[in-house]
Amino acid sequence: MRAGIAGFRGYSGAELVRWLGRHPWVEPVLLEHRADSADRPRPRGDRGPQRLPCAAEAVQAAGLAVVFLATPADVSMELAPALLGAGARVVDLSGAFRLRTVERYEHWYREKHTQPDLLAEAAYGLPEFCRERIRGARLVANPGCYPTAANLAIRPLLEAGVIDRAAGIVCDAKSGVSGAGRKPSLKTSFCEVTDNFSAYSILKHRHVPEVLLTCGLEESEFSFTAQLLPLDRGILETIYFRTEARSAGELLGIYEKRYAGEPFLRLYEAGQVPDLHSVRHTNYCDIGVTLADGRAVVVAAEDNLVKGAAGQAIQNMNLMLGFPETEGLL
Amino acid sequence: MRAGIAGFRGYSGAELVRWLGRHPWVEPVLLEHRADSADRPRPRGDRGPQRLPCAAEAVQAAGLAVVFLATPADVSMELAPALLGAGARVVDLSGAFRLRTVERYEHWYREKHTQPDLLAEAAYGLPEFCRERIRGARLVANPGCYPTAANLAIRPLLEAGVIDRAAGIVCDAKSGVSGAGRKPSLKTSFCEVTDNFSAYSILKHRHVPEVLLTCGLEESEFSFTAQLLPLDRGILETIYFRTEARSAGELLGIYEKRYAGEPFLRLYEAGQVPDLHSVRHTNYCDIGVTLADGRAVVVAAEDNLVKGAAGQAIQNMNLMLGFPETEGLL
Amino acid sequence: MRAGIAGFRGYSGAELVRWLGRHPWVEPVLLEHRADSADRPRPRGDRGPQRLPCAAEAVQAAGLAVVFLATPADVSMELAPALLGAGARVVDLSGAFRLRTVERYEHWYREKHTQPDLLAEAAYGLPEFCRERIRGARLVANPGCYPTAANLAIRPLLEAGVIDRAAGIVCDAKSGVSGAGRKPSLKTSFCEVTDNFSAYSILKHRHVPEVLLTCGLEESEFSFTAQLLPLDRGILETIYFRTEARSAGELLGIYEKRYAGEPFLRLYEAGQVPDLHSVRHTNYCDIGVTLADGRAVVVAAEDNLVKGAAGQAIQNMNLMLGFPETEGLL
Amino acid sequence: MRAGIAGFRGYSGAELVRWLGRHPWVEPVLLEHRADSADRPRPRGDRGPQRLPCAAEAVQAAGLAVVFLATPADVSMELAPALLGAGARVVDLSGAFRLRTVERYEHWYREKHTQPDLLAEAAYGLPEFCRERIRGARLVANPGCYPTAANLAIRPLLEAGVIDRAAGIVCDAKSGVSGAGRKPSLKTSFCEVTDNFSAYSILKHRHVPEVLLTCGLEESEFSFTAQLLPLDRGILETIYFRTEARSAGELLGIYEKRYAGEPFLRLYEAGQVPDLHSVRHTNYCDIGVTLADGRAVVVAAEDNLVKGAAGQAIQNMNLMLGFPETEGLL
Repeated sequence: MRAGIAGFRGYSGAELVRWLGRHPWVEPVLLEHRADSADRPRPRGDRGPQRLPCAAEAVQAAGLAVVFLATPADVSMELAPALLGAGARVVDLSGAFRLRTVERYEHWYREKHTQPDLLAEAAYGLPEFCRERIRGARLVANPGCYPTAANLAIRPLLEAGVIDRAAGIVCDAKSGVSGAGRKPSLKTSFCEVTDNFSAYSILKHRHVPEVLLTCGLEESEFSFTAQLLPLDRGILETIYFRTEARSAGELLGIYEKRYAGEPFLRLYEAGQVPDLHSVRHTNYCDIGVTLADGRAVVVAAEDNLVKGAAGQAIQNMNLMLGFPETEGLL
Repeated sequence: MRAGIAGFRGYSGAELVRWLGRHPWVEPVLLEHRADSADRPRPRGDRGPQRLPCAAEAVQAAGLAVVFLATPADVSMELAPALLGAGARVVDLSGAFRLRTVERYEHWYREKHTQPDLLAEAAYGLPEFCRERIRGARLVANPGCYPTAANLAIRPLLEAGVIDRAAGIVCDAKSGVSGAGRKPSLKTSFCEVTDNFSAYSILKHRHVPEVLLTCGLEESEFSFTAQLLPLDRGILETIYFRTEARSAGELLGIYEKRYAGEPFLRLYEAGQVPDLHSVRHTNYCDIGVTLADGRAVVVAAEDNLVKGAAGQAIQNMNLMLGFPETEGLL
Repeated sequence: MRAGIAGFRGYSGAELVRWLGRHPWVEPVLLEHRADSADRPRPRGDRGPQRLPCAAEAVQAAGLAVVFLATPADVSMELAPALLGAGARVVDLSGAFRLRTVERYEHWYREKHTQPDLLAEAAYGLPEFCRERIRGARLVANPGCYPTAANLAIRPLLEAGVIDRAAGIVCDAKSGVSGAGRKPSLKTSFCEVTDNFSAYSILKHRHVPEVLLTCGLEESEFSFTAQLLPLDRGILETIYFRTEARSAGELLGIYEKRYAGEPFLRLYEAGQVPDLHSVRHTNYCDIGVTLADGRAVVVAAEDNLVKGAAGQAIQNMNLMLGFPETEGLL
Repeated sequence: MRAGIAGFRGYSGAELVRWLGRHPWVEPVLLEHRADSADRPRPRGDRGPQRLPCAAEAVQAAGLAVVFLATPADVSMELAPALLGAGARVVDLSGAFRLRTVERYEHWYREKHTQPDLLAEAAYGLPEFCRERIRGARLVANPGCYPTAANLAIRPLLEAGVIDRAAGIVCDAKSGVSGAGRKPSLKTSFCEVTDNFSAYSILKHRHVPEVLLTCGLEESEFSFTAQLLPLDRGILETIYFRTEARSAGELLGIYEKRYAGEPFLRLYEAGQVPDLHSVRHTNYCDIGVTLADGRAVVVAAEDNLVKGAAGQAIQNMNLMLGFPETEGLL
């Protein structure tokens, strides 16, 4: 089978091309939308995957089973209807189809939503919680990088009732720079990022509503800060809450039960936590727990370009096309 | 006047030498204790400051007004009595003399304290809160790097009663690698740190009791995580709490009043926060505040080798010797 | 088949474990020699490959077809005889068996050689030039990281007679820090390496004789400087010489002819050169050429842990065991 | 006295502001030309230096003694005549006025030169070789960052006749990213630079002719490669040549004699060389020499933003205005 990738020059798009190149059943095809950014020099004779124009006819003629949109939200809204019309399933990596309602989208993104029907139709692509809906979906909204780790770390504990919601949940999140995309900007320039660490979008990041929706939290119960690490890839979230659980092991037991059989969730011994090296270039989300008299600290780590983007998108594609969920991802 | 530096090959010690080299009234002298670590190659003819053995007689003969101990806690306990006996004032940069009681020291450091009298005598060297005691002190315990920023950010708000202590205060702290010292270890090896970010000593870091003591907090009210950034210097702390304050401006007003005239505290406009580039190679602690319905996020940044170590030590020296507090530090 | 790895905690050893884990016919086994270095925390339930003591009996009982020695030269000299005696083929990644004669070894390494017979017997493991000898060898000396790129870039041009040897060849080499091994040292500490770039072993690096031997150069014809980059992996060598060739294309034609069919050599268009991102985490050595009236600059890049160590070692193993040469390496 | 800075938001411009802020006799004034780039958030109450429009009248009214142009070459050509007309001396940090003739400029820069008279008039601002011309100049062309180190390392040895010119001189240069300016571009984006090292403008960099002119070399005698290091500031050049000198000491003796009394040149013992940490944030150019039978390797290091830009510009200003040459630079 063949899978198209729009936005293949961006970091998430290039990561999709790399991982799909190792997938046993799927061949990547590059969909040229706008050649706004230079290709890297390639060795002689290395042509890379086939290229097609990103247009309904070409997609239909090539018989692409699925198209990944690694494009900005406005471009995804523009491309999705035609691609779906051409018979392809669509996995969108932007924020365009994640928030269910136009009101919510326009509140958090401060932009008009032009495809309200698709927004209502899209399945949220977090397999650990939405596996069945993803299998049958035409359009999957691949989760944001930050909410993937946050939801995987927080929701099982909320469901088990061990978090003191009144005291609030703090999620202090740190991300590598590739999360900001490949488009040059002062904010992501080498000299601005190296030897630096900075917080942004404090308490108002666009990814917050994905956590509120998935976990069933009120905005006032959840304090989220995004921060930029001087490295290219990786997200680590340090999550604080008050709890009546009496040990880290008790919390780990909840995760263990909830995630039994999940291929991409890994837990650590009580008091041990993952770091970014634990998860770089993998599709795992790793979780560790520390607890001391009523205060818990959960550390969740993932690669923002893999479990936080391209890897999870392929996991969704595997579900949509009926492949084993881990195909090409281990 | 002349100031001795024991441990001048370490990162804090070398920083002291650099800053004292710019001080108009004080000349640094290197005190050779153990030559366990190689000097860097120097240009021809660059001898650097004078060197003396780190012994009571040499210190007395040279008439050193003050000695900085940039040494591990056990070495500081060993050296401090003799140096004080030789008539020098002492500013100790280790944790040896910060915690007031032997019990507290032995609980947090898991080591025996051999100088209980000096521990009781030492003044805690946080000028913004202990200026008068420092002026008259023979022995100053220079604060830990993490507690300096945490105390400066938290205590004024606690004093003003605007923090909901029942819900707890979270301090998510990130530090550059120089904070771990110059002694080679796997943990601080380049390949282990680069492209990585890791949490350590979660909820049990030795610096926690300095915050509890200075702020008057119970351990159960304060959740602290230390984390290692892939950069050499700088600390940024993201501090979360619940509050009845209705705006960031209200919190900023409290800081402004408390820190009026303080030379090394800087505030940002509501909703703006410092990053590490704001404070690198300076003695400032910068503070910014964001607030949204009942949840506040305070970001405090400093250079761990300056306000978090050598700079603050010189600030303390200036107070002890009667120089203007900012001399050599702007 | 099963392959043992001694020194699996080091960077080259760990890289061997990772790549062998993807090899379709070979299963890695960890050989515990000295547990001098801590393992990283692992997720629960992740046991990793089987572990055996690094002893002749265990190796024989387990029927290991090959053992990789990712150990220091003195340890390799100690282990190799017993492992060969136990019936295993050996690929040694240290410098112990690369230089053919005891005199040469002792001149460049300033250490005694205790296994002169094995030194004489060993095949030099650069497949592009020694493929046949490797196939039949019991003991392969895997090349040094620097000489791999240098030899691949220089030898074809020397053979073609286009380099003006009288004017000399300059090889300005830069390497990531993993090349220095995992043992903590001040030289490889994060704070010493970050924001830094430094030259070492100028004109006298231990890897020089491997280039002299493979290329048939006199020491006086070859100026080599090793330099440390602030990054974990990758080697880039900028090679200068005078030539009567009239275009970059002429030099590229020589490479193209010599390396026709070579799976791990890639060339760039005239005037284009690879960077480290071109080769990270691959077994390729990439070569690009620039030329201007009589002066040529060749840039060769590789991943020091892959083509410069573990990848090339597996390439050698594939040859020794009769697998396709690229198995597990693409 | 007051000194204007056009282009104060760029890295060289900001460095000028920082260093001038420490100069005892000169006060910096920011000249607003185009506000194309955002200012960093500042602490409350920190207004920074005075701002004026970058126009002849304002400069004249404010009585600026000197104006620094930290602007692109085309902007410098546009601004210089009016500022000189307003009575200010001008130190230009771009390449606009370095190459003496219009032909040479247009050959290397591939752009039209609009101010041929000023090009002919300008003094080349390398104090170690052009001190007297600088003192009397209205317009100084501050040298490029790469040529500063190259000329300081090469010219004394050429003058002494110890370099075998027929065999050619190789200058393998590595620079931090700030040398490429602050304007966002893919080439200087964090994710493209980190974990990478790349060569560019091989054998045709615009800075080459500055070395040819200052050293009296033919293009065919000088092979220069520029390369990008994953760090913000610092240049290290590894220079190779053949020589009849018999020891590193002999070459060091030549430097020592030529640079006796020079405040910003430092030499190392034979066989020792500087690294980037030796010179970061200083106005020094450090030089070390290694030699082995006929082949010499000279390592020269500087901070590209200081001796390679802002520091040298202030050194030139000191000469032009009659201050001690080291004022504000130690």
